[in-house]
Amino acid sequence: MKRKSQGRNGGSALSSLSLAHGKRARLHRLLYGHGPANGTLMVLPLDQGLEHGPTDFFPNPAALDTEFQFRLAVEGRFSAIALGVGLAEKHMRDYAGRVPLVLKLNGKTNIPDDAEAVSPAFASVEDAVRLGADAVGYTVYVGSPRQDVEIREYGVVRQECERLGMPLVVWAYPRGRDVEAKGGRGTLFAQDYAARVAEELGADVVKLHEPAEDPGASPEPYRSLREGVAARLRRVVRSAGRVMVLFSGGAKQDDDAAVLRKVRLYMECGATGVMFGRNMWLRDFEAAVSLARRVHAIMHRFPR
Amino acid sequence: MKRKSQGRNGGSALSSLSLAHGKRARLHRLLYGHGPANGTLMVLPLDQGLEHGPTDFFPNPAALDTEFQFRLAVEGRFSAIALGVGLAEKHMRDYAGRVPLVLKLNGKTNIPDDAEAVSPAFASVEDAVRLGADAVGYTVYVGSPRQDVEIREYGVVRQECERLGMPLVVWAYPRGRDVEAKGGRGTLFAQDYAARVAEELGADVVKLHEPAEDPGASPEPYRSLREGVAARLRRVVRSAGRVMVLFSGGAKQDDDAAVLRKVRLYMECGATGVMFGRNMWLRDFEAAVSLARRVHAIMHRFPR
Amino acid sequence: MKRKSQGRNGGSALSSLSLAHGKRARLHRLLYGHGPANGTLMVLPLDQGLEHGPTDFFPNPAALDTEFQFRLAVEGRFSAIALGVGLAEKHMRDYAGRVPLVLKLNGKTNIPDDAEAVSPAFASVEDAVRLGADAVGYTVYVGSPRQDVEIREYGVVRQECERLGMPLVVWAYPRGRDVEAKGGRGTLFAQDYAARVAEELGADVVKLHEPAEDPGASPEPYRSLREGVAARLRRVVRSAGRVMVLFSGGAKQDDDAAVLRKVRLYMECGATGVMFGRNMWLRDFEAAVSLARRVHAIMHRFPR
Amino acid sequence: MKRKSQGRNGGSALSSLSLAHGKRARLHRLLYGHGPANGTLMVLPLDQGLEHGPTDFFPNPAALDTEFQFRLAVEGRFSAIALGVGLAEKHMRDYAGRVPLVLKLNGKTNIPDDAEAVSPAFASVEDAVRLGADAVGYTVYVGSPRQDVEIREYGVVRQECERLGMPLVVWAYPRGRDVEAKGGRGTLFAQDYAARVAEELGADVVKLHEPAEDPGASPEPYRSLREGVAARLRRVVRSAGRVMVLFSGGAKQDDDAAVLRKVRLYMECGATGVMFGRNMWLRDFEAAVSLARRVHAIMHRFPR
Amino acid sequence: MKRKSQGRNGGSALSSLSLAHGKRARLHRLLYGHGPANGTLMVLPLDQGLEHGPTDFFPNPAALDTEFQFRLAVEGRFSAIALGVGLAEKHMRDYAGRVPLVLKLNGKTNIPDDAEAVSPAFASVEDAVRLGADAVGYTVYVGSPRQDVEIREYGVVRQECERLGMPLVVWAYPRGRDVEAKGGRGTLFAQDYAARVAEELGADVVKLHEPAEDPGASPEPYRSLREGVAARLRRVVRSAGRVMVLFSGGAKQDDDAAVLRKVRLYMECGATGVMFGRNMWLRDFEAAVSLARRVHAIMHRFPR
Repeated sequence: MKRKSQGRNGGSALSSLSLAHGKRARLHRLLYGHGPANGTLMVLPLDQGLEHGPTDFFPNPAALDTEFQFRLAVEGRFSAIALGVGLAEKHMRDYAGRVPLVLKLNGKTNIPDDAEAVSPAFASVEDAVRLGADAVGYTVYVGSPRQDVEIREYGVVRQECERLGMPLVVWAYPRGRDVEAKGGRGTLFAQDYAARVAEELGADVVKLHEPAEDPGASPEPYRSLREGVAARLRRVVRSAGRVMVLFSGGAKQDDDAAVLRKVRLYMECGATGVMFGRNMWLRDFEAAVSLARRVHAIMHRFPR
Repeated sequence: MKRKSQGRNGGSALSSLSLAHGKRARLHRLLYGHGPANGTLMVLPLDQGLEHGPTDFFPNPAALDTEFQFRLAVEGRFSAIALGVGLAEKHMRDYAGRVPLVLKLNGKTNIPDDAEAVSPAFASVEDAVRLGADAVGYTVYVGSPRQDVEIREYGVVRQECERLGMPLVVWAYPRGRDVEAKGGRGTLFAQDYAARVAEELGADVVKLHEPAEDPGASPEPYRSLREGVAARLRRVVRSAGRVMVLFSGGAKQDDDAAVLRKVRLYMECGATGVMFGRNMWLRDFEAAVSLARRVHAIMHRFPR
Repeated sequence: MKRKSQGRNGGSALSSLSLAHGKRARLHRLLYGHGPANGTLMVLPLDQGLEHGPTDFFPNPAALDTEFQFRLAVEGRFSAIALGVGLAEKHMRDYAGRVPLVLKLNGKTNIPDDAEAVSPAFASVEDAVRLGADAVGYTVYVGSPRQDVEIREYGVVRQECERLGMPLVVWAYPRGRDVEAKGGRGTLFAQDYAARVAEELGADVVKLHEPAEDPGASPEPYRSLREGVAARLRRVVRSAGRVMVLFSGGAKQDDDAAVLRKVRLYMECGATGVMFGRNMWLRDFEAAVSLARRVHAIMHRFPR
Repeated sequence: MKRKSQGRNGGSALSSLSLAHGKRARLHRLLYGHGPANGTLMVLPLDQGLEHGPTDFFPNPAALDTEFQFRLAVEGRFSAIALGVGLAEKHMRDYAGRVPLVLKLNGKTNIPDDAEAVSPAFASVEDAVRLGADAVGYTVYVGSPRQDVEIREYGVVRQECERLGMPLVVWAYPRGRDVEAKGGRGTLFAQDYAARVAEELGADVVKLHEPAEDPGASPEPYRSLREGVAARLRRVVRSAGRVMVLFSGGAKQDDDAAVLRKVRLYMECGATGVMFGRNMWLRDFEAAVSLARRVHAIMHRFPR
Repeated sequence: MKRKSQGRNGGSALSSLSLAHGKRARLHRLLYGHGPANGTLMVLPLDQGLEHGPTDFFPNPAALDTEFQFRLAVEGRFSAIALGVGLAEKHMRDYAGRVPLVLKLNGKTNIPDDAEAVSPAFASVEDAVRLGADAVGYTVYVGSPRQDVEIREYGVVRQECERLGMPLVVWAYPRGRDVEAKGGRGTLFAQDYAARVAEELGADVVKLHEPAEDPGASPEPYRSLREGVAARLRRVVRSAGRVMVLFSGGAKQDDDAAVLRKVRLYMECGATGVMFGRNMWLRDFEAAVSLARRVHAIMHRFPR
């Protein structure tokens, strides 16, 4: 894999930010040293085995072996692979240096429901340093009845990131019974709030979902908004401020063209990139690599 | 911006207080080095994006970009801008030294209701030192069923402030189901109690709301008091003792004259200043700067 | 104010106790260096603003300004003033060295009810050392459903007191739904248990209330006891063992003679002293000083 | 009091155990340096004032003064006295070196019921070292719904004991609503389980109650067992493995002969000794000393 | 006991893993230095006394004495014995070096039900180092409503293992009301999820149960799967990735041949070994040794 030491814009995505040395170096590696290397990001996530169980792998049993995702991350030239300490420790050895690691620090099963969701950490920023990661990932359940636990524990991780110069990617996920009562986790209301929370809490990068239209249960003014998908996407990108936004792929979409249309739309609406998991690794390996390369082609049209 | 190294009263607002070196220096900077610089305070807060979501910005979308508030703080010559670590880290670079920072350490979303409100910290006093802040802000939900968590965590922050010489601005907010059962968060009963709590807990500055008249649900003797707004304001200022009181602006008021009447009234009743957010940054930029300057003019009549 | 370096009994109230150096020195200062200076204690408490709100000050608005209590403590020649870190830091400067400080470390509002009362700390024993205090005060809600939190947190404070040579005054307050179900917080049953708890937990001094007769809801053998007030007082003093007992004044009593009869009775029944707040500072200043001096006269008849 | 530096068996009760230096020295002092000094233990406990309140002392008011128990421990030649930090600090001075101390670290009142019992610590193993104790005592409420708190906090104490060479005496008390639903705290089922828990958790000595026969609510196979008291006692001693078992005396038994029969039975069934409180100190002083000496005589027949 | 310093495959079970020095050395000792010594594992667990009470020992009272299991572990040439700190400290002395120790760090009683199961630690990785253990054991209740506590505490232990080079054996046990609502703890759904959780959380070895067929309450796609036992076993082994799988023996099976058929099946399906407790130590000693040797014979056919 050929690496560019810098994107064509010379690192402009970082130019407005005041960053500690280590954090700047690591973000630069993610944005300009790997993947599209033009200030955009293509991250391959693999935390579904913990979050949803092996169920998610049934459509493509080969993906149960984490080698699949590591090989895909390398051959599909992703900016990074995002996974937990167990998978990283067992599989990084042959891939270290070939694809950056976003170490996902927290997670939970989906066996209990999400009415009072909390995502506990089972790894630390020091683990990330030890494993040579270029960022950590951390889920915050925005609006959960136990948001005090979520925010407090997040705050400790954020300070560790600051201390160790580690970029922080926040999975800002609206969750819990109050979110459901206000229209659900996928609405513009919920995603827009999540974007702002990530900004206020000090994320470097935020992972969001494509916001759906708000139903009658959503609070005003969202309930009365009648914006199209592009307007909604631009809105949440704007609400994230200077935090770089990655949109999630969500459940698998079989139609490659549809996936690529999504990517293009997200980038046109101001996203820094995408974090597509199942839409990548639930495809046959060659199909996934091919799709990744077509995503690359799109990303190259949106240098930052 | 011209800075006075000292107000005309030579720092008299601080003269009765026994303060650690660092805390005295920082308070002096806030009171006499910036803003009206005469011992009064005009603080521009921006934590509504976390506390209420992007909803608050709909009337003035330009305000979603934190540059708006930083520019307003500088051009409107505020004593300080008060916001969280995420906004500070992403936007301070160009403003450091031009406007003091009050780093707000805790916060939450309003998605769950406030029956058992707790405000968790996601930043620390050490973050404030690192970012060059001149004070920290901390919300205490007075009277919440979970007041033990609120007070205990506050106590740790207070001790860190002492250790690091950092002034502590307390958002003393009555909150929770018991407050509602006793007449609500906005009553004189609730605000008066909050003022005293801030004093007992060791705040340097307290942010309060203009106290409303008590309804039948309020406890005696408040329920039977028939005091006008000025008397109520003076009462809460008195209950705060030597803690400097800032009154909040609350929801946006379109009528500039009404806003200015409020400011004058608050100052006449003994406030040290105001912390107006939406009443500032939901105006067009020029209108906001102009309003800020008229607030300045009022403040100059109340040197301390 | 004239100080005796030692009471007429040469410190005999301490002679049976095995105390660390710092603790002995500080207790000696409280018992023989200030106030009656004969081994008895007259403490002026001021935590009602936090515990009950400004309501308590309505009968004497002058008392809202903590200067009132500091001046009263000095002119009434109290053994110590007991208050929290906020009031101490804002008002001690002019009084340091003139009246000893008991720094009250924990407290809460009375807005939520006391069914599951917990008293969180917002200051530390190190704060007390920094402020030159001669003791710390700490509330333990005896018998609360959350007694595990109460006792555990108390234990940490106790060890800090041991480490730093700081005497520990325990406000031993029966509280919570189970106390109410067993006759209430004011009964002999409840106060007697509280006295013993203070002894077992390692208090140096305990603040108790005058025990009332037990109603039918109290457990045996208390329910069937028919003891007069003096017998009840002696009983709780005995249950406190070698812990010095201070009786509280409770709600304000207008009749000076009645107050003085209480003091005499408490001392005759073995108390080391009294901790009267509202019965002191809700009087006009001169009346309060005069009452304090008459209390002094009584105390002088009970050297220890 | 004459001390033997070693029992007639040369410390054989310890010979099978692999112990850290300090722990071996302290256990040796308890087993062979004091009391019967033959490998058996007679411990005088005094935590009832905290656990039950002053109620327990009504039959013998003299016992309210902890001097009573200290004198009894010395004159009755007990192996140790077991009490909390408050009583130890106020009364040890004249007895240090004359009777070993087991410092009881945790406890609670019985004002709330025991449905979710937790016993919080208010002293530490470091306190025990400072006070010259030869062991610490710690209550574990076996089977409480909050057993996770109980076990976790116990674990920290255990590690501190290991670090400081301090023997650990566990009050293994079945407690909580589930214990009651399964036949109650006093059954063989409950005591047998408690014995095993003490062994698994790493106690050096365990305090148990004489196990009663199981009722219909007990789980199988206990419910169907029809064992006599001696068989039940032997069973729980066996379940405790190499942990030394002390049986509790429970509520006061007026008949001396009955008490002595109990002691003999316990020793015959394999106990290392007894921990009798109320059955000792609720007797007149001389009667208690005399009873203690008769217990001594029994113990001498069971050297270990 | 003859020891091979290395299995015939030269440690190939470890060859794909990137391990810290100490962890590699200890795993090598377990896999190639003891027991079958060919990369497979036969572990003898003894935590049932804590988890289930002495009840489990009724069929073979001799097993109540932990010497039984230690002797069995040595004479049956097990790879390791797995037990808690209490049993280890009291019994290891004569066996240290003869059989490796897996120190089980957490546990609880089964007196409260498992609706909200949590397994608290009562020992630490430092205890394991002090006792010369070659691994620690840790239970994680997968899917419990209190999974946040489970995962967070696990995470701290995992990091300690990393720091001290200690292999981590996870008892991955589906548990809690939501697991029961989704078909129960023994189903393929539950075991398969548990296997993946162990992998994601970073276990080195995982203990699982033989997965049963899913009932109608299980989620899809499990509910509709119709796989035989071998397919189910292979599936969970695959879901565990590079984590070595040990299958549990569960309740005692009297038929030796049936036990051996299980072992063979497990090994054929990819297990690294077995952790059989009651199926070993509830047999007469000689029968247990003989069974262990026949298990050995099977293991030798599955070198890794």
